[in-house]
Amino acid sequence: MANINEAFLNLEEDYLFSKVIEKMDEYKLKNLNAKIINLGIGDVTLPLAKTVIDAMNKATYEMASKENFKGYGPVQGYDFLIEKILKYEYEKRGVKFNKDEIFIASGTKGDLAGIAELFSTNSIVGIMEPVYPAYRDVNIMLGRKNIIYLKGTEENNFIPQIPKEHIDIIYLCSPNNPTGIVLNKEELTNWVDYAKKNNSVILFDSVYEAFIEDEDIPHSIYEIEGAKEVAIEFRSYSKLAGFTGVRSSFTVIPKKLKVQDFNSEKIELNSVWKRRQSTKFGAAPYITQRGAEAIYSEEGQKEIKENINYYKENARYMLEKLKKAGFTVYGGKNSPYIWLKTPNNMKSWNFFDKLLSEAGVVGTPGIGFGKTGEGYFRLTAFSSKEDTIDAINRITNMSSKE
Amino acid sequence: MANINEAFLNLEEDYLFSKVIEKMDEYKLKNLNAKIINLGIGDVTLPLAKTVIDAMNKATYEMASKENFKGYGPVQGYDFLIEKILKYEYEKRGVKFNKDEIFIASGTKGDLAGIAELFSTNSIVGIMEPVYPAYRDVNIMLGRKNIIYLKGTEENNFIPQIPKEHIDIIYLCSPNNPTGIVLNKEELTNWVDYAKKNNSVILFDSVYEAFIEDEDIPHSIYEIEGAKEVAIEFRSYSKLAGFTGVRSSFTVIPKKLKVQDFNSEKIELNSVWKRRQSTKFGAAPYITQRGAEAIYSEEGQKEIKENINYYKENARYMLEKLKKAGFTVYGGKNSPYIWLKTPNNMKSWNFFDKLLSEAGVVGTPGIGFGKTGEGYFRLTAFSSKEDTIDAINRITNMSSKE
Repeated sequence: MANINEAFLNLEEDYLFSKVIEKMDEYKLKNLNAKIINLGIGDVTLPLAKTVIDAMNKATYEMASKENFKGYGPVQGYDFLIEKILKYEYEKRGVKFNKDEIFIASGTKGDLAGIAELFSTNSIVGIMEPVYPAYRDVNIMLGRKNIIYLKGTEENNFIPQIPKEHIDIIYLCSPNNPTGIVLNKEELTNWVDYAKKNNSVILFDSVYEAFIEDEDIPHSIYEIEGAKEVAIEFRSYSKLAGFTGVRSSFTVIPKKLKVQDFNSEKIELNSVWKRRQSTKFGAAPYITQRGAEAIYSEEGQKEIKENINYYKENARYMLEKLKKAGFTVYGGKNSPYIWLKTPNNMKSWNFFDKLLSEAGVVGTPGIGFGKTGEGYFRLTAFSSKEDTIDAINRITNMSSKE
Repeated sequence: MANINEAFLNLEEDYLFSKVIEKMDEYKLKNLNAKIINLGIGDVTLPLAKTVIDAMNKATYEMASKENFKGYGPVQGYDFLIEKILKYEYEKRGVKFNKDEIFIASGTKGDLAGIAELFSTNSIVGIMEPVYPAYRDVNIMLGRKNIIYLKGTEENNFIPQIPKEHIDIIYLCSPNNPTGIVLNKEELTNWVDYAKKNNSVILFDSVYEAFIEDEDIPHSIYEIEGAKEVAIEFRSYSKLAGFTGVRSSFTVIPKKLKVQDFNSEKIELNSVWKRRQSTKFGAAPYITQRGAEAIYSEEGQKEIKENINYYKENARYMLEKLKKAGFTVYGGKNSPYIWLKTPNNMKSWNFFDKLLSEAGVVGTPGIGFGKTGEGYFRLTAFSSKEDTIDAINRITNMSSKE
C-alpha cells in the first residue's frame, strides 16, 4: 500500500496561524456584535502603492496583445527586476552580485522550504528561537532529527549566543519575527566567522529589513565581510511593499557559496538550486515582477516608505503605551513586531484567550514560535492607526483592572 | 561541513528545456539573420482572453483601495474560484466534490513536486514513459530508488500496460505530453482497478484535457467509478487559458483517498497536504485567482475555446502534412502535441540538430522524455498558424531532400 512519509506525522497538528484564525472565528460566532481587532497574523493592511498598481495594470494589458504577450518566464526571473535588485538592494550598500546570483520567486515561504531540501538529511540544523515556525516544520518534514534551538531569552536579550557545538545549517532571522530584535554588525560578524570555521551555511531571513532604522544595523548579511562564502539571503516584497496577497520575493545564492558531496568535493549551491527550480518551480509571473520592479522608481520608493512609516509609527505607539502601562515589552523598533511578556507568567495560549475574551484583541501566542516563546505574546503593527490605538487602550485598560 | 543532499547529484545535469534553449541561442548567435521557428517548448503564444484581462485589471484596482485590499489569501484558495471549479469542471461531468477537496496553486509544477513528498522514500513509483521529465526528476530528488517506467512504445500505441508487479504511486498523463495519446475509459478503469487492488495512489496529470475532442475520452479521472479512493488530479490554467506566464492551477485530493502509516493506520492525504501547504506554500495570489475565475463566464468560455481551437487546427494541419510527407506521426488529436518518429532511426538529439541547422526549426528530442522516447521527436501546436505552416513546409522539404 502507498505509505505516508512518516516525517509528516512528526509535525504538530495545527499550524499556528490556522489555530489563531480558528479561535477567532469561534469567538466571532459567539459574539456577533463584538468588534475584534486582529494584531495577530502579520499581514499588511494598507493598499498597494499607486506606482505598483499602474505597473501591474500596464503589464496585464501587455498580456492582451500578441506582440507583448509573455508565456513561461526565465526560471531565475526577468532581468529588468534582477537588475533593479542588484542596484538598489545591494550596490547601494556596497555589495556586488551578478545577475545569476539572484532568484526571483513567489514568496519567501516556498524558497525557505525548498532550500532546506538541498542539504543532506542528517545535517545538524540550528534554528534561532523564538522564531517563525516554518523553519522548524520544513526540517521536520525533511526527516531531520538533529535540530538545535539557539535560544533567545530575556537573559540574552533574545539574541542567541554562538554555540559551542558544530552546526551545519543555521537559521537567522533579523529583524526577528516574533521578538523584533535585530542582529548588529558584530553579532552577524561572529556568525559569519563561526560559519566559515565550521563550513556551515547561514540561511538569513531578512524579510523585515525595511523596518530597520538604526544606521549601524545591517540590512543584508552581505554587508559582513566573507558572508558570500557562507550565507543565503531571503528577501520579500510582502512587508516591504505590501505584497502579501501578490506574492513576490527573491533569494540570493552567491556563486562563492559551496558545500561538499560525499567525496568531499566542493559543489556550488547556486547551480543545484537552479536545477531544482527548473524542475519544481514554474518561474515567477511576469505581471508580478513588473509590480515589484515599480517600487524601485523614485515615486515607488516614496510611496512604499510612507506605508512602512505608517506601520513603524504604530509600533512606536504600541511600545510606548504598553511600557507605560507596566508591560515588559521588546521589539517595536527596527521591526513591526512587539514582543510582550505575559503578566504573571501566564501561559501564552491562556493570555491569548484572556485578551480575546476580555479585550476582543487577537495576538499570537509566543509558544507558537518555539518553546522559548512560552510566556510571551506577539503583537503586530500592521493594523490601522485607529485600530492600533483602540487595541492598545483595550489591553492597557484590561491589565489595570487585574 | 554542510553536505549536499546526495539525491540531487543523481539528476542529469541539464534540464531538457534549458538545453533546448541553450542550443537554440547558440544557433541564433551563429546565424544572425535566420528565422528560427520554435515548435519545441510547450508554451502558448496567443494573448490572454479579454475577459481574463478585465478581471485581472479589476482585481488589481481593488488592491489599490483600503476597503478592497487583499493580503494573505486562504491557503486552499478563494471560494469564488473553487466554487466555479466544482460547478464547471466537475459537476457538469457528474462528479461532486466539496470545497475543501480542491487546492488552488500557482502552477502544476509545484504541486506535482510537492505531492511526491507525502509518500515514504522507499515507495515504488511507476511512471508512464515517455513523459514530462519532472515526474522522474522530483522522485530522484526525493531519493527514490524504486522507479519503474511504464513503457509506451509503437507496439502498444504508447499506452502503457497494467504492470504485473506492485506499484505504490502511479504517474499517468492524459492527454500525454509528449506522445499526444489519450487514455480511454476502459484503460483508466483498469488503472483505477489496479490501484484499488494494490492500494496504490494514481497521480493523474490532465493539464491538457481541454484539447480532448473525442466524446468518449474522460477529461477527469473522477469520471471513473471509484477513482476518488485512489486518485489525485492535477489541472492547470496554463494551456486551458494561456496562463503559462500568469501561473494558476488546481489540484484535487478527495477526502476518500487514504494511505497508511507504519502502524497500518489509514491517513487522509487531503489533510496532510493542507498541513504541508500551510507551511510551504504562501497561497495563490488574489489577482490571478480572479483571472482564472473569469474563464468560467459565458464570454470567457467562448474566448478560451477560440484559442484552444486555433491550436487544435495547427495540430490537425501538422498531423496531416507530416503524414502525407511520409513521416510516422502520433498524437495531434485530443492533444497539442505531435509525436514524430525520426527518419532512419536517427537519435533524437541528432534529429534536433539536423532540424535546427537545415530547417531552422526547433523541436524537442524524444529522449528528453525518457529512454523510450529515443528515436522520437515532439512538435507542439502552440505557434502561430503562419509559423506552423512555414515550419511544416521546411520540415517536409528537408525530408524530401534526403
